[in-house]
Amino acid sequence: MKKIFFTVLGLLIINTVTAQNSQEQSDSLMLRKIYDMSLMQGKSYDWLDHLSNKIGGRLSGSYQAQQAVEYTKEELESLGLDKVWLQPVMVPKWTRGSKEFAYVETSPGTTRTVNITALGGSVATPAGGTKAQVIEVQGIEDLEHYGREQIEGKIVFFNRPMRPDLISTFEAYGGCVDQRYSGAAEAGKYGAAGVIVRSMNLRMDDYPHTGSMSYGSTPVSERIPAAAISTNDAAYLSGILKMNKDLQLYFKQNSEQHEDVQSYNVIGEITGSEYPEEILVVGGHLDSWDIGDGAHDDGAGVVQSMEVLRLFKEIGYKPKRTIRVVLFMNEENGLRGGNKYAEVAKSKNEKHIFALESDAGGFTPRGFSFDADKAQFAQIQSWKELFKPYLIHYFELGGSGADVGPLKQGDVVLAGLRPDSQRYFDHHHAANDTFEHVNKRELELGAATMASLVYLVDNYGIKRINTDVEEKL
Amino acid sequence: MKKIFFTVLGLLIINTVTAQNSQEQSDSLMLRKIYDMSLMQGKSYDWLDHLSNKIGGRLSGSYQAQQAVEYTKEELESLGLDKVWLQPVMVPKWTRGSKEFAYVETSPGTTRTVNITALGGSVATPAGGTKAQVIEVQGIEDLEHYGREQIEGKIVFFNRPMRPDLISTFEAYGGCVDQRYSGAAEAGKYGAAGVIVRSMNLRMDDYPHTGSMSYGSTPVSERIPAAAISTNDAAYLSGILKMNKDLQLYFKQNSEQHEDVQSYNVIGEITGSEYPEEILVVGGHLDSWDIGDGAHDDGAGVVQSMEVLRLFKEIGYKPKRTIRVVLFMNEENGLRGGNKYAEVAKSKNEKHIFALESDAGGFTPRGFSFDADKAQFAQIQSWKELFKPYLIHYFELGGSGADVGPLKQGDVVLAGLRPDSQRYFDHHHAANDTFEHVNKRELELGAATMASLVYLVDNYGIKRINTDVEEKL
Repeated sequence: MKKIFFTVLGLLIINTVTAQNSQEQSDSLMLRKIYDMSLMQGKSYDWLDHLSNKIGGRLSGSYQAQQAVEYTKEELESLGLDKVWLQPVMVPKWTRGSKEFAYVETSPGTTRTVNITALGGSVATPAGGTKAQVIEVQGIEDLEHYGREQIEGKIVFFNRPMRPDLISTFEAYGGCVDQRYSGAAEAGKYGAAGVIVRSMNLRMDDYPHTGSMSYGSTPVSERIPAAAISTNDAAYLSGILKMNKDLQLYFKQNSEQHEDVQSYNVIGEITGSEYPEEILVVGGHLDSWDIGDGAHDDGAGVVQSMEVLRLFKEIGYKPKRTIRVVLFMNEENGLRGGNKYAEVAKSKNEKHIFALESDAGGFTPRGFSFDADKAQFAQIQSWKELFKPYLIHYFELGGSGADVGPLKQGDVVLAGLRPDSQRYFDHHHAANDTFEHVNKRELELGAATMASLVYLVDNYGIKRINTDVEEKL
Repeated sequence: MKKIFFTVLGLLIINTVTAQNSQEQSDSLMLRKIYDMSLMQGKSYDWLDHLSNKIGGRLSGSYQAQQAVEYTKEELESLGLDKVWLQPVMVPKWTRGSKEFAYVETSPGTTRTVNITALGGSVATPAGGTKAQVIEVQGIEDLEHYGREQIEGKIVFFNRPMRPDLISTFEAYGGCVDQRYSGAAEAGKYGAAGVIVRSMNLRMDDYPHTGSMSYGSTPVSERIPAAAISTNDAAYLSGILKMNKDLQLYFKQNSEQHEDVQSYNVIGEITGSEYPEEILVVGGHLDSWDIGDGAHDDGAGVVQSMEVLRLFKEIGYKPKRTIRVVLFMNEENGLRGGNKYAEVAKSKNEKHIFALESDAGGFTPRGFSFDADKAQFAQIQSWKELFKPYLIHYFELGGSGADVGPLKQGDVVLAGLRPDSQRYFDHHHAANDTFEHVNKRELELGAATMASLVYLVDNYGIKRINTDVEEKL
């Protein structure tokens, strides 16, 4: 009896192990198919070529943003998805106007041009420009130290650099970007005439990097103009200030905030065959800053997200759950698209179980970060080994992405693709965020990595918080 | 008694664990110091700027190669090492001559220029150029199939592309490069007039990629000229051949092989404080192809290797063992430097325990591959966790590098730095292997990653093959 029992137990174990092995094997084959299709017959790079070179920079409310809406909708329609639609959303419209101009005047008539770009959302300078002495600070916290006495009437030069010792450049960015986002609102309180911010760039070069800023509750009449200066010129300005505290900086920009305009999120889906009510989102943002062509930020994320659904169609994979691609509008200066999508989802009582965003550039993918609870994360980590042949090694808890963030509630797992970050801020929000800096293979590897994770979530579902843990206990 | 025994045992365990923890902690702090120094006060990028922009392409036997010898020797001398010297080695000298020229003639007078570059070591065409019909093949194995009848008098066009589905681009390279290396020798046996090889490049672009080739035992009088063609032009040629089998290809090059000339490996060392007779080598190759400036191949490896020793000096780390930087001459077309170094080491009965090579580009480091036995590899893998904060995840058995290869004997462990490989062959041996395609942070991360491994090997030594395993048993 004992012997029989152990034999049966043995067979059961063998059967379970075999079933598990064969499941792993079939997952492993599916991932191989996905990567092969993306690398050998991928479409992401061609789409990115069009978005970058035929359309170009796609600032919310611009003609190019509208072109991007129409182009991506058409392309999604050509894939034979079950549904493609536009989701209306009102977006802010800010225009840069004619190119900004700035110089440093060390003595009357002795000037040197410096490279600046208006921050997104900044007011214009007076028509004749702003010219004033400069006070250099290392961050917002310095303002109080100097006080109104030393700041009033001057241009505040925020010059705290990104920390080069941090391995994640996003962490270095996070440690500096308050200067760009809130510098003008804060310096305005001390009577500053304007604000110049060192570009959020680890590299020393001549490109100024724009990006969003906010005046907070500052009344319109008290808003001061703000621009970014290239890292090379920030170093120059800082150096020459040490020799000549009385030099003057001149800058001129005629940017303008307009009324909100109509725009759209672009959405397509493959409806699930077994659990159509469970929705998986994969997305990136359609809008970009205006001074480059937005190839890395976030053309890459847009075309990779589209490619996820195309890869499933091409390899003949029929998802059990509903897979939705969402191309969000207005991530850069408002997040209106991300908020609208979540609002509509909530109002329709849709059940999102997973949302993956790609908004960190089209560089070699290293893995994902997840916003999930422990049991969910343990489930996801059990898939990590499947990614090893593709050199995907980074599965960590952490942030996901700005556009999927508003979906957070209940059991939904949010995730962000994490490409190699070293070169990202060389291009981010600058005139050199252009197509030729995206490597085709790196882009395609990212799309395949995303599709692989979406496949696994679709195939196995996502653990519900608490309940599954309790079941285990 | 029992109680006391367990208490003592407990304390012993705690002490051991504590000692181990504190050792791990101090290793961890040392790695942090190394990375900080490289990223915040690194010198590798400045050195690379000089090698690339002030000196340029450094083909063996050229004036630039000699400049590189002198420059790196001076720089090493400025670091305060214990010893810096030149190791004489005779190297081959091949010159490209005036720029190559080629066109496809689809009918008399109807021509289109195509981008080619002579393969390193190729003979010249006749003074008036070579003009002949073209036969396209997918590899050397096709030659037998077509036979002398279809090949004689024609230009053989080797057009097997690198496989895009392979994640390691080096593996894809390995699957194609026989066409470049042996194509001319093999096609010559069937009476071909010349050879054109599709560039070893996964990207579609206009850059032809040179590289070494060999005629094997082919008598000088029977050698046929060989050139690489850009991937775009390979696609064009293949396409137009399908429509017009009788088209002719013309190419002209006046490359030349000269007598061997005197050159040098450049070597510097910090002599070990405890085990000076145990030598660790870190190195890259000083020579490069002539058509770019050799920034990735292998300027990056050279400056990273120099940086390893500089980092130790800067942070005040005094190695127990002897750390030697070796800048090898003539990796590209002869490996004379690597062979000479190993030959001298053997003749002096030097005891090399470890040799690390960087010759895969200055891209974001992912880890290392090792040529080691199981016990040695297990020891090395025990350090892997220390690298996690730096996103270094790849520790695998596999090849090391061409220049350190000849050192293989006995217990020595060989290793190769493994940077991200996706962009490498976009630049490899082409005119766009230039400084601006190297990212400063990626280069510096590589240097720090190398220094960290060298530190660990220095600190703990390397297990001897067999003996240590036996001791354990």
